[in-house]
Amino acid sequence: MAADFEYPINVTWGDCDPARIAYTARLPAFALEAINGWWEAHFDGNGWYQMELDQNVGTPFVKLEMEFSSPVTPRHTLMCETFPTRLGDKSITFAVRGRQNGTLCFSGSFTCVFTIADAFKSQSAPPEMRAVIEPLIKAA
Amino acid sequence: MAADFEYPINVTWGDCDPARIAYTARLPAFALEAINGWWEAHFDGNGWYQMELDQNVGTPFVKLEMEFSSPVTPRHTLMCETFPTRLGDKSITFAVRGRQNGTLCFSGSFTCVFTIADAFKSQSAPPEMRAVIEPLIKAA
Amino acid sequence: MAADFEYPINVTWGDCDPARIAYTARLPAFALEAINGWWEAHFDGNGWYQMELDQNVGTPFVKLEMEFSSPVTPRHTLMCETFPTRLGDKSITFAVRGRQNGTLCFSGSFTCVFTIADAFKSQSAPPEMRAVIEPLIKAA
Amino acid sequence: MAADFEYPINVTWGDCDPARIAYTARLPAFALEAINGWWEAHFDGNGWYQMELDQNVGTPFVKLEMEFSSPVTPRHTLMCETFPTRLGDKSITFAVRGRQNGTLCFSGSFTCVFTIADAFKSQSAPPEMRAVIEPLIKAA
Repeated sequence: MAADFEYPINVTWGDCDPARIAYTARLPAFALEAINGWWEAHFDGNGWYQMELDQNVGTPFVKLEMEFSSPVTPRHTLMCETFPTRLGDKSITFAVRGRQNGTLCFSGSFTCVFTIADAFKSQSAPPEMRAVIEPLIKAA
Repeated sequence: MAADFEYPINVTWGDCDPARIAYTARLPAFALEAINGWWEAHFDGNGWYQMELDQNVGTPFVKLEMEFSSPVTPRHTLMCETFPTRLGDKSITFAVRGRQNGTLCFSGSFTCVFTIADAFKSQSAPPEMRAVIEPLIKAA
Repeated sequence: MAADFEYPINVTWGDCDPARIAYTARLPAFALEAINGWWEAHFDGNGWYQMELDQNVGTPFVKLEMEFSSPVTPRHTLMCETFPTRLGDKSITFAVRGRQNGTLCFSGSFTCVFTIADAFKSQSAPPEMRAVIEPLIKAA
Repeated sequence: MAADFEYPINVTWGDCDPARIAYTARLPAFALEAINGWWEAHFDGNGWYQMELDQNVGTPFVKLEMEFSSPVTPRHTLMCETFPTRLGDKSITFAVRGRQNGTLCFSGSFTCVFTIADAFKSQSAPPEMRAVIEPLIKAA
């Protein structure tokens, strides 16, 4: 069984608002960084940039939801556990759980569709991606 | 009946990614700008900054969900229709619908809790806020 | 003589750091928004996005400098006075001065080069742009 | 002689604009991340957040300048060489040089003043900071 993938984020002063915690709008951005990092980690360093420009595969988001349970601060590294929870014919759903010092800060679900990037048209998940993704799917 | 509140956002080059559309993580940020703008519009120009620092009222987010139906670009102003859909004792939920040139680009639901800001403890919605908010509640 | 161009920015909670002022890295971003706004205002609403994608003219930055004299906060609209200070054969320099409630918060100088966007090669300023820009040049 | 300090940044899709390179306003933000990282690396993990909130020392920026010589992309890690070039009584200047795959992408100079954070008043560099910083000063 594959080890859990965690993407580390160094939260800093500039991410925080006057309440001294990471500004809410930074949290979806962190989760997206983690999902991009998941692609990099499982596809030879190729994230969305390489997928789109080199492989002509886009994965635009169609839906996201997040629950926030504990503030994110610069006191600890933000560890973002990231894994696919569902792979449809033309879509993929990821879970991201952000933790600091072992405390769950947020959890979210993010659904993307596969596209032919330069045509902005949906397509089925490319088989070589499906082969890598399927064994990594876990329940949310 | 109150006119619908729309917060306009000038989407620009710097908001866009190589797919030539606003980067997904910008969209929750836009929606939050619109919610902050809703507070400003209904409370004498006082947004989160003034609420927190002058009135000691925080409204941290506990949940958000968004669906993306059409890309956001710099071609048109992003009009963010924003209104409360529910006011609980200690929480408030907003709907935000972003449109460009009449086309729905995203819709979302955002739930915040009222806090005593300097204590980071939850509180009931202050009565003077409740008085303004209640007549503005609409179904999502 | 042309009236001064000012681009207004609604600074909000999310722009601020725990010192309760706009985070330093937001200030170059605001200045760039103002320069993009200057292009929009003087070229029929066409900012960098339309220049690059529709007209194949890029204006990448080669240099910027900024001095910060007073904190930027959400207490007042940030008015960004923006004007060209120099138009070379292949480059343009802008001054941006950000003020809140009449107080100078920052001033900066920003130099861009004209490029053929899809070739990423420098070019002379297009004549139709030069015709609009030249009368607007002022000393910094 | 101290080894050069380099702060690595994983540039991604979301940092890039439609020209497929990191948006200009991201570059000062990267440089600031690197300077914050320099403080963390030389002061037991304490960056601006801990300096301000735990030690009551602020270092707001008064000036920055940057030159951009080559585009930043997600193709390589952005290595930000960061070091102090001058320590005055009440101010400190940093150089940051961003390189990808050995190519210089930008270089900049950033001057901060030391403040008593909660009073927002300038102060001399605290002696325990001066002791660490002085041996690390290099010509720009």
